[in-house]
Amino acid sequence: MKIYDLQTPALLVDAGDLQHNLGVMAEALPDTRLRPHVKAHKTTRLAARQAVLGHRTFTCATIREVEGMAGAGLGDDLLLANEVLDASRLGRVVARGARVTLAVDSDATVEAAAAGGVGEVVVDVNVGLPRCGCPPEDAGRLAELARARGLMVRGVMGYEGHVVGLEDRTKRAEMTEDCMRLLLDAHGDVGGDVVSAGGTGTYDVNTWANEIQAGSYALMDTAYAKLDLPFRNALTLLGTVISVNPAGWAVADCGLKALGMDHGNPSLTDGGVVWFCSDEHVTFSAKDGSPGYLTGQRVRLVPAHIDPTVAYHETMHLVDGEDVLESWPVDLRGW
Amino acid sequence: MKIYDLQTPALLVDAGDLQHNLGVMAEALPDTRLRPHVKAHKTTRLAARQAVLGHRTFTCATIREVEGMAGAGLGDDLLLANEVLDASRLGRVVARGARVTLAVDSDATVEAAAAGGVGEVVVDVNVGLPRCGCPPEDAGRLAELARARGLMVRGVMGYEGHVVGLEDRTKRAEMTEDCMRLLLDAHGDVGGDVVSAGGTGTYDVNTWANEIQAGSYALMDTAYAKLDLPFRNALTLLGTVISVNPAGWAVADCGLKALGMDHGNPSLTDGGVVWFCSDEHVTFSAKDGSPGYLTGQRVRLVPAHIDPTVAYHETMHLVDGEDVLESWPVDLRGW
Repeated sequence: MKIYDLQTPALLVDAGDLQHNLGVMAEALPDTRLRPHVKAHKTTRLAARQAVLGHRTFTCATIREVEGMAGAGLGDDLLLANEVLDASRLGRVVARGARVTLAVDSDATVEAAAAGGVGEVVVDVNVGLPRCGCPPEDAGRLAELARARGLMVRGVMGYEGHVVGLEDRTKRAEMTEDCMRLLLDAHGDVGGDVVSAGGTGTYDVNTWANEIQAGSYALMDTAYAKLDLPFRNALTLLGTVISVNPAGWAVADCGLKALGMDHGNPSLTDGGVVWFCSDEHVTFSAKDGSPGYLTGQRVRLVPAHIDPTVAYHETMHLVDGEDVLESWPVDLRGW
Repeated sequence: MKIYDLQTPALLVDAGDLQHNLGVMAEALPDTRLRPHVKAHKTTRLAARQAVLGHRTFTCATIREVEGMAGAGLGDDLLLANEVLDASRLGRVVARGARVTLAVDSDATVEAAAAGGVGEVVVDVNVGLPRCGCPPEDAGRLAELARARGLMVRGVMGYEGHVVGLEDRTKRAEMTEDCMRLLLDAHGDVGGDVVSAGGTGTYDVNTWANEIQAGSYALMDTAYAKLDLPFRNALTLLGTVISVNPAGWAVADCGLKALGMDHGNPSLTDGGVVWFCSDEHVTFSAKDGSPGYLTGQRVRLVPAHIDPTVAYHETMHLVDGEDVLESWPVDLRGW
C-alpha cells in the first residue's frame, strides 16, 4: 500500500526516524533506566518495539493503558503514574498475572490501591508542578500508611513537568536538580528501590532518578523540537487538499478533530503558512515565491503537541517514503 | 445507574436542557427549515431525537458521519457539506438506498461526485470565510459542468462561519445579509431548490437561506454561550478530584485528551478557577471564600468548544440530576 491509498486525515510515522529515536534513547538510557511512557503514542505495537530494544518496564497515565499493555503481553512491570480513586479494574489486571504499581499521594489513594487489589505502590511526590503528588514532607507518613495497609512500597516518583519544556538547557538542568533534591529527600523517608521521574526534555539532565518516564521522544512534536534534543519529528498528519481558492489559500481535510491544539497550530512540512484550523479543515497558503497548491494534492503537518493529537486517531501508519509498511491500531485510547 | 457510578472523565448531557434546546429550535425552524449538523454531537441517538421533532434532513462533515447516519436509518436526505476527492464510499451509501447530496466547489470535486456514484450535488459558494467554496462568480459554470456530467444540481450552500460567533447581534445580522446576497446571486446562476447556510449563531438572523445547518445549539459550549441565544449549556464533562494540594489547588482526571482546547480552557460549573490542563489532568482552585475540594469529589466542566471535545469520547450519558437515563455511543467519530 502507498500513502496515496490512505483515507485522510491519517497519522504517518516515519520508520527511519522512529527507529533513530528509539535507538538513541535505548543507548542513553538502556533497559530499566528508561520506563517508556505510553501516553504519548497509545499504541501497543509501538511499545513492542521499545520492548525489543530492552525496555520491559512501562509508564501509563490511564487504567485503559494499563489494561491494554497487559493484554498485549507487555505487563512485566507497569507503573500507573497517576492517582485513581477506584483501583478495581487494576486489581483485575494484577489477578490475571501482570505486575502493576500505582502512584498514591493521599490517604484516599492508598485506600483505593488496597481496596482494589493492587499490591504495589510508589509515593507520588510533588516537586514543583502544580498537579498531583503529596507535599515532600508527607511522603514518609504515606509510605507508613501504605505498609500498614499491607501494600509493598516500591519507592517514589515525582514529575518535573514544569521543567521538561524549558529551552535553556542550563536552566533545565539546574531546575531539575532542585526538583530531584526534593524527591531524593522524600525517598529517604519512604525507602524502596524506585526513584522514577523525568520526561523527554530532561532525559539526559535528570541524573538523580534511577528511571526516566520519557514518552514523547519516540514520535516528537514541534513543541519539543524547540529543545536541543537528538530526536527527530517522526510523526506527521497526512491531509488532502480539498479546495484551492484563487484569492490565495488552500484547504486540507485535517482540523481540530485530528490535532491537539493546546500548543497551537500545526506546521506544514513544506514551509507553507497555516492560517487557522476548523473542525475538519486547515486553511493555509504557500510560502512566498513557491507555487500554490493543487486540489487533490497531499500535504503533511507536524502537530504542535503529539499526545492529544494521537488520542484522536484510530490508526497510525508506519511508512518508509511512500510505502505503508504497517498500520498500527492506536489501541490504548480512552479511559 | 447514578452519575457517581460512571468512569470519569465522562460526558454528561442534561436531558432537560437538551430537550429545551431541541424544542426551541424546532419551533423556530421547523421540519426542513433546519438541516441539523451532526458534527457537533456525532451521535445517532441524539440525531434520532432531532428527527422525532420533525427534522429528517441532516448535515454531515465527514464520510463516516454520512455512513453512520444512513446505517442508523436517518438517511432520508443527508448533505455532506464538505468537499471530497474520493466519493466511492458515499456512492456505496447511495447504492444501499440513502439519499446523499455532496458539496462541490471545483472541477475535481464535480468529477469525484460523478465517479463515485453520488448523483446529487450542491455548489458550495465561498461567502467570505477563508475556507471551502468556489468564488461566487464561478458557481454557474460549476453547475453547468455538474449537469453535463449527469449530476442533479440541487442548489447552493455557503457557510458564513466568520459571522456565526460575533457577539454583537446587529453586526451579525448585517454581515449575514452581506454573505447571503453573494449566495443568492450565485443561486440565481445555479438554480435548484436548496439554499443552505448558517449555523447556531445565525439561526434566527439568516432569513435568506431556506435551510439552516445549525448543530451546536443542541449541546452548546462556553464560546456560543457568550451570544444572546436562547439555548442552554446541556453538556458537561464529569471529572473526579484525584489530588488536593494544601498549597491551594486541586486536580481532576480530565485533561487535554477529553477536551477540545482551540477555544481555551473549560469552565468549572461551581465557579472554581481553572489554572491549566495537562494530558489527563485539569488543575484548578476554589473560588474565593468557598471551601476547597475533597479527594474523590466529582466536578463538572463546560468545554470551550464542543465539537472537538465530543470527538474524544466513546460515550455520552443522558442524565437527569444524578440519574443516568441512557448512555449513547458517540458513533460518528473518525473519518
